[in-house]
Amino acid sequence: MTLHAVAILSPGEMGGGVGAALLRHGHDVLTCLAGRSARTKARAERLGFRLCPDLGSLVAEADIVLSILPPEAARATAEEVAAAMRRTGEAPSYAELNAVAPETSRAIGGLFQGTGAEYIDGGIIGLPPAEGRKPTRIYVSGNAAPALDAFDGKDMTIHQCGPEIGRASSVKMCYASISKGTNTLHTAAMTAADSLGVGDILRAEIADSVPAVYERMQANVPRLPADSGRWIGEMEEIAKTYAAAGLPPGFHLAAAEIFRLLDATPYGSETRETMDRSRTMERTVAACVAELRKREAAE
Amino acid sequence: MTLHAVAILSPGEMGGGVGAALLRHGHDVLTCLAGRSARTKARAERLGFRLCPDLGSLVAEADIVLSILPPEAARATAEEVAAAMRRTGEAPSYAELNAVAPETSRAIGGLFQGTGAEYIDGGIIGLPPAEGRKPTRIYVSGNAAPALDAFDGKDMTIHQCGPEIGRASSVKMCYASISKGTNTLHTAAMTAADSLGVGDILRAEIADSVPAVYERMQANVPRLPADSGRWIGEMEEIAKTYAAAGLPPGFHLAAAEIFRLLDATPYGSETRETMDRSRTMERTVAACVAELRKREAAE
Repeated sequence: MTLHAVAILSPGEMGGGVGAALLRHGHDVLTCLAGRSARTKARAERLGFRLCPDLGSLVAEADIVLSILPPEAARATAEEVAAAMRRTGEAPSYAELNAVAPETSRAIGGLFQGTGAEYIDGGIIGLPPAEGRKPTRIYVSGNAAPALDAFDGKDMTIHQCGPEIGRASSVKMCYASISKGTNTLHTAAMTAADSLGVGDILRAEIADSVPAVYERMQANVPRLPADSGRWIGEMEEIAKTYAAAGLPPGFHLAAAEIFRLLDATPYGSETRETMDRSRTMERTVAACVAELRKREAAE
Repeated sequence: MTLHAVAILSPGEMGGGVGAALLRHGHDVLTCLAGRSARTKARAERLGFRLCPDLGSLVAEADIVLSILPPEAARATAEEVAAAMRRTGEAPSYAELNAVAPETSRAIGGLFQGTGAEYIDGGIIGLPPAEGRKPTRIYVSGNAAPALDAFDGKDMTIHQCGPEIGRASSVKMCYASISKGTNTLHTAAMTAADSLGVGDILRAEIADSVPAVYERMQANVPRLPADSGRWIGEMEEIAKTYAAAGLPPGFHLAAAEIFRLLDATPYGSETRETMDRSRTMERTVAACVAELRKREAAE
């Protein structure tokens, strides 16, 4: 299997970054923009992706389809692509690289049965690929996963997790459970303290006794509203992963609540490009408290 | 109010440390050991605390009673002390320094109504006081809290949080929600990964991309079993605190589950003195996975 022509669904921030890296390294990068946002369309055109008019032509031209989407869109997109494969008889490989539970990935893989397409499970860790940045890590599993080694070193690294579908998703879920779990826990604790009127006292204690934690929360909490809307579904997938492993889903159901809260603040409409990078943790947390007060008043 | 004679209930690890520091700094330190463990009795005798035969003589001799206990014992102890005050007509101040929700502290304060005792809300952050160690922080609130400034600088610092009962407990709850929330989240994530068969892959990714997180989990996770049993109640108090502030209680109900899991492993019977400090995170997590398997098999 050679992977020259790579279809990206969809060229959002991460998908756009992965596609752009592959383009820089000589791949033919295609996409299909039916139903995508104006921002995503503009990005795909700016990056120079080749546009296919529909999924039928996309599966006919691609050697592999990379699904890089918010997790709640993963299944519907896979259904559409599998339908296009059945309609056309074309069967490129399909790599499910979204932040979904291993069982979700296994269920999505089942959609391709009978199409002839190879199904690859995967998960992406790190920022989108960019020259001069630490390479993005792409974890993959499945019998056909070794083919993705063709992308290794192209501003990304490929990590093989074995032949079993779900293993790469497990790595992604557990990793994200820590990083996003911690960020939402920090947001929740500072919001609780502010709501209880002791925010200043708590901040002083944390700054004094665990300065690394204080620096991390100051750096990360203000950036969360921009992404909070699209991370709710990811937290629910992590909760599902934990429950299947016999562990409590509560951490990440609570994390989903915190992303909902952040998303409901006035800052929830920000994007990574438009967000106010001078905003402090204190102001971000104050917006969460204001949203809680609004909810109480509405009850 | 002078605070020369200080009663400690109970001289466990933290209470023993606080009492020993006050003894070093010239206070008269008393306790009452009826119903305490052999370990606690041995500690009180080793530290040289003056032993009162019953709570009646303790409240008669003490200028202040410091309640330093596992949170689930806080209310019953306060009830006994309040009863002893009513019986004897003696009314030293009572400082509730346990890890309880602000509403729990307010309810405990109510038990002293009519006794004439001043009630002080408090929370302790940091390791037990010891010479040459960063001072233990004692956060206090309530009208009578300023009297505790007498302990400031005696291997501990006193932090005034204002006249309202509950404010000091709020600080403690929010702080512990971060520290113990993060430790249990790390334990949960590594247990999930091991249970899903990808522990080695996840550890390598974390060690590479977030080495500070890796070092923290390696240092902290193996130490948790020794304390896990007595931290379950604290997580439930934090969950109550969050819920009252309009925030999701799920993080810390899950944290309580993780402490229950750690406590059920063979390492759960350790103490800080007896624990095997050479044990790795990997072995601690493997014991959690084994406990999960045992539970599955029992279902």
